[in-house]
Amino acid sequence: MRIAELSRQSGVPVPTIKYYLRENLLPPGERTSPNQASYGDQHLRRLRLIRALVDLGKVPIAQVKDVIAGLDSEDLPLHDQIGRAHRAITRTPPASPAPSSAATARVQALLESRGWTVEPDAPALTTLADTVAAFEALGQDHLIPLLDAYAEAVEKFTALEIQAVTTRRTPDQIAESVVIGTILGETLITSLRLLAQESLSATEWKKA
Amino acid sequence: MRIAELSRQSGVPVPTIKYYLRENLLPPGERTSPNQASYGDQHLRRLRLIRALVDLGKVPIAQVKDVIAGLDSEDLPLHDQIGRAHRAITRTPPASPAPSSAATARVQALLESRGWTVEPDAPALTTLADTVAAFEALGQDHLIPLLDAYAEAVEKFTALEIQAVTTRRTPDQIAESVVIGTILGETLITSLRLLAQESLSATEWKKA
Repeated sequence: MRIAELSRQSGVPVPTIKYYLRENLLPPGERTSPNQASYGDQHLRRLRLIRALVDLGKVPIAQVKDVIAGLDSEDLPLHDQIGRAHRAITRTPPASPAPSSAATARVQALLESRGWTVEPDAPALTTLADTVAAFEALGQDHLIPLLDAYAEAVEKFTALEIQAVTTRRTPDQIAESVVIGTILGETLITSLRLLAQESLSATEWKKA
Repeated sequence: MRIAELSRQSGVPVPTIKYYLRENLLPPGERTSPNQASYGDQHLRRLRLIRALVDLGKVPIAQVKDVIAGLDSEDLPLHDQIGRAHRAITRTPPASPAPSSAATARVQALLESRGWTVEPDAPALTTLADTVAAFEALGQDHLIPLLDAYAEAVEKFTALEIQAVTTRRTPDQIAESVVIGTILGETLITSLRLLAQESLSATEWKKA
């Protein structure tokens, strides 16, 4: 199909598609004349992926580019694919002081009690310790014991996520599924939490 | 304390503090002379809250303003406080086509099966249906059955969250706890999920 048709089917404006082509987010179409190219289903699918990551996953375009580059480099081990998806959604640590040693110790104790093994430089480790430290600094110590309940719940569905993704047939499909599942899964969980909070808090507090 | 001392203790630069004062994110200090004001612990605490929401919660400053305005209006019922915190972290729905009726039906069935009652215009409802629709459009139907596991896990810790927050003494403290717990709790859960994924996937896939 021509670029106008690709735009119509994907709902992405032509100038945006051209931008993605320039930035190598989208592979080039097949040249049919010096001024024209033809695009296929792979382009449509890729466009949908980019828009889902940007619109629903709120991933900045520079990080989408990195995630897509990962999907396009076939020889990247799956574990590194996952690493790229993770970095795309990890909140960058604030410039503020390092988390208290109490917060870091709390996080380490949690990892040990659950038997989780992660690289010591995993960005999520810093974010987690920073957040625990923020709870303390903001006088919200009563929220810290929730950590264990969160970790237990998270571990349960993470095992199912990994199981679901391994049902895919090719390494390509698995990689794509990991990226989408990691990033859009976060949107899913956040939405469900907000709905559960609204429902439970309506019962508890609407009267207040 | 003077503004320079407030800056030193909070780690927030003086021009940023002045900006927050102009934008009413921070209540004015007590005038001690025509050109000077004195700030107290409440200012320090408020600054820490703003920075945690911005740096860790990744909440845009316009929405932080709305959340803070909620905390400052004492007569706002708690349920509306929660609504403000929710809107601050709800991802705005994409401009793309409305979610498929299949996705909407899937979400409605989920709410019914869990007995969750939410306002039909809850933004998280749209985000959830959009995300389910995106899974379908991206050929990731195998991830949709995970919805039930996510919902079950989420319901469990949400009940604990509400319990934890109700241990606070005054309506003021409860409201602040709800805001912090809702927004920073999301950061906490995301970080834990990334760590669990890294740990479990290392076992499964590092060899791949």
